[in-house]
Amino acid sequence: MNGIFITFEGGDGVGKSVQSRLLADFLKSKGIEIVLTREPGGTPVSEEIRKILLTGAAEKMDSLTEALLYLAARSAHWTQKIKPELDANRSVICDRFQDSTLVYQGICKNVNVNFLNKIFEEFTNGQLPMRTYLIDLDPRIGIPRSIARQNGEELRFEQMDISFHENVRDGFLTISSQFPERFVVIDGTLSIEEIHELIKKDIRKFI
Amino acid sequence: MNGIFITFEGGDGVGKSVQSRLLADFLKSKGIEIVLTREPGGTPVSEEIRKILLTGAAEKMDSLTEALLYLAARSAHWTQKIKPELDANRSVICDRFQDSTLVYQGICKNVNVNFLNKIFEEFTNGQLPMRTYLIDLDPRIGIPRSIARQNGEELRFEQMDISFHENVRDGFLTISSQFPERFVVIDGTLSIEEIHELIKKDIRKFI
Repeated sequence: MNGIFITFEGGDGVGKSVQSRLLADFLKSKGIEIVLTREPGGTPVSEEIRKILLTGAAEKMDSLTEALLYLAARSAHWTQKIKPELDANRSVICDRFQDSTLVYQGICKNVNVNFLNKIFEEFTNGQLPMRTYLIDLDPRIGIPRSIARQNGEELRFEQMDISFHENVRDGFLTISSQFPERFVVIDGTLSIEEIHELIKKDIRKFI
Repeated sequence: MNGIFITFEGGDGVGKSVQSRLLADFLKSKGIEIVLTREPGGTPVSEEIRKILLTGAAEKMDSLTEALLYLAARSAHWTQKIKPELDANRSVICDRFQDSTLVYQGICKNVNVNFLNKIFEEFTNGQLPMRTYLIDLDPRIGIPRSIARQNGEELRFEQMDISFHENVRDGFLTISSQFPERFVVIDGTLSIEEIHELIKKDIRKFI
């Protein structure tokens, strides 16, 4: 496995997608082959699961079922897309990955975190991202941004209250503190350009 | 948990659905409140997952992803439907359950059986059916029956070759031999009426 595997994490509205795209463009400009992808989603099966998770029926789902669906989507994404790309020496940037499940379903909805990691390890053999950029932002800033951007179809998480999102923020900070060598925590109140500069400076160590 | 939990298992075309219905009718005639359900499916979320599993995208799914989807569907089914019914002293008959996943994804497609049971135990706390009727039949009889019955939309398993279905048959017999107190193995070459009589005779021990 030779490509670089990079993930972006953080609450809704912190700017993960835009930073993923900017980093992909930067790496491409350096001649690095990059695949930009997202979770849940990334393969036909995962996109089908995404529909269940982010609309309709999911409202009535218990947390463990929800976690299993995220892991099923991730299993397909890893096996059919991410791993083959990395093996072919292409790099992959993924908008959300296992850390999101550990935070949302594990820490915030009380699904056993060790159990979630056991399933993850069953398909990845424990392979983790080389770098995870956690964009940390007060949900009182991020969530209104996220709501403003939505078209009304994928509102599930955003409909929850701010205290839930504060737990999400704390959860990401907890996980990041457990993996200090993998995580880079970035102040989400900085401008898009400032954040991109910090990420470029960091990723240069790997390219 | 007070209701009786009964499952039917076996390959395609062995007569699980018809025997489930006949048993439900018999138990109702004895004044027992019965819920008849099936897997994958049984709740709105599980039915959404069923669509992914039995049509289209599933063709390209790896076995572990497929197993995780079956377990997600089962988790919702157990938590939202089966357990509440049993707790309310109603009995439940389910057409396929965990044993099907152990056989199809575990034994026949090489997903770790202990891993599959660990996930199952996470939501059931190890609760197993009180009785499992395994209808055992040569797939050279069952599969043509099953194909004749299909409307063309849910053909996934049936499209596979006979040697796969022979492994399924052997897999069910293996699992049943590991739980002799729970399983009743029934000769699927008997008539519908003969099979129903055997099941009625057996279930009388519990009612």
